[in-house]
Amino acid sequence: MLSNSRMVRIEWGDCDPAGIIFYPRYFAMFDHSTTMLITAASGVSKAELFKKYEFGGYPLVQTQAKFVQPTRFGDDVIIQSTFTRVGRSSFEIRHQIRKNNHICVDGLETRAWVKRDPVDKDKIKSHPLPEELAARFKAEL
Amino acid sequence: MLSNSRMVRIEWGDCDPAGIIFYPRYFAMFDHSTTMLITAASGVSKAELFKKYEFGGYPLVQTQAKFVQPTRFGDDVIIQSTFTRVGRSSFEIRHQIRKNNHICVDGLETRAWVKRDPVDKDKIKSHPLPEELAARFKAEL
Amino acid sequence: MLSNSRMVRIEWGDCDPAGIIFYPRYFAMFDHSTTMLITAASGVSKAELFKKYEFGGYPLVQTQAKFVQPTRFGDDVIIQSTFTRVGRSSFEIRHQIRKNNHICVDGLETRAWVKRDPVDKDKIKSHPLPEELAARFKAEL
Amino acid sequence: MLSNSRMVRIEWGDCDPAGIIFYPRYFAMFDHSTTMLITAASGVSKAELFKKYEFGGYPLVQTQAKFVQPTRFGDDVIIQSTFTRVGRSSFEIRHQIRKNNHICVDGLETRAWVKRDPVDKDKIKSHPLPEELAARFKAEL
Repeated sequence: MLSNSRMVRIEWGDCDPAGIIFYPRYFAMFDHSTTMLITAASGVSKAELFKKYEFGGYPLVQTQAKFVQPTRFGDDVIIQSTFTRVGRSSFEIRHQIRKNNHICVDGLETRAWVKRDPVDKDKIKSHPLPEELAARFKAEL
Repeated sequence: MLSNSRMVRIEWGDCDPAGIIFYPRYFAMFDHSTTMLITAASGVSKAELFKKYEFGGYPLVQTQAKFVQPTRFGDDVIIQSTFTRVGRSSFEIRHQIRKNNHICVDGLETRAWVKRDPVDKDKIKSHPLPEELAARFKAEL
Repeated sequence: MLSNSRMVRIEWGDCDPAGIIFYPRYFAMFDHSTTMLITAASGVSKAELFKKYEFGGYPLVQTQAKFVQPTRFGDDVIIQSTFTRVGRSSFEIRHQIRKNNHICVDGLETRAWVKRDPVDKDKIKSHPLPEELAARFKAEL
Repeated sequence: MLSNSRMVRIEWGDCDPAGIIFYPRYFAMFDHSTTMLITAASGVSKAELFKKYEFGGYPLVQTQAKFVQPTRFGDDVIIQSTFTRVGRSSFEIRHQIRKNNHICVDGLETRAWVKRDPVDKDKIKSHPLPEELAARFKAEL
């Protein structure tokens, strides 16, 4: 399955009065890592993806995370993101954050591929993933 | 000129390792206060405003702020927002944040009323404010 | 078990280019709801809690959430937060977000009561919850 | 005067329903650029800076910014940050954000070097900058 790694420096503004990261920030990092992973798989940016495929995004359906060890401002962490399941109209990505090779956060997210309802543009419905994209998500590296 | 006041509790997650608010959070508060002010003036929500007037938003052109006194998690502050100038296609709003009647932040922002370029949808251009809206922005309370 | 409800308006700045909430914002809302719940239980603010009990906070150990229906800027949602388990040194809180009585998000978090390591102040260890606090967390309303 | 440049990719979660960056995010970027600049000048991380000098941080006193051109998710921008004035107990930094060599944001911030009040730890007072640090802030590159 396709995988992506990137380094992120935990910033002062990511942290709370206890001096450790305010955990919602991890989810913002996960979200961007997911976009990087899909960009790597599709070969186009998220903006171009919307133009290439007529779809409404890949919103989160479910997420879970374990917080093993806190991180602090100034820490450089590695976020590794890997497809763990690619279904018909949804897929799963695991995000692991490590500091000095020790696991800090272990997250798992399920996302759906959706289209906007042609009648009510405010509604979205899950839709089969484009085949070529699903194949690329599953690619061994 | 029209004015709006609201109380906001400074949250743990708004604050940084020094225990005081991470100042970009103030600008997020200002932004919502501006929306509340325009909602009060127009009588419709921001979503309905986009439907009522064909326009592209009221992005920030310029902002400035003085930080007089820090605020901390658990503090209840009052944000008072007032139109200070209403021009042809732009307007100015002053946001003042007070804790126990002492000024903490004094901000001033200039926003433009914009429309999307009909040719290049990614471009925006300033456009005269709808007259009825400008009149309401200027309303004495 | 103790419970807390509050109304939150989804702000423009909480939302992403798809026009729906950027989901990490939900976790920031959950975090503040947890603080409100513990404030209600303990009778003191979070700042006073740190003074009253010598402890290092109640960091997240684990979280999970299901996103059933998106929310959009201008939506008024109700966040209901309830203790679902109170253990020796950890506790669980369920956060449910509803719009017009329909569930939008269903979250569950586990938090630990921690103390700072007396030798290495940067380290934290889980510690038994103060008994009076545990009793209040469990209080029927 | 000392200067620092870095590239930042505008993320999906940085942007609002208009598809452009939610401007408070710029201030979070400025804050981190300031920290990078001070880290470059002092040779130590922000965490180590607190240990090396007995001080309470360098909070913002005043800021102003002009927003010339919007940025969108997927944009790679360059943030250039330069000391423009180094005073006795305060300093000024200019942050300029460019996309494809065109200026998007032009910001100017004043920060104070502060110490905590020995009597009331919650209060902070401006304090002369350590001389060696002031000299490094002024260094020509």
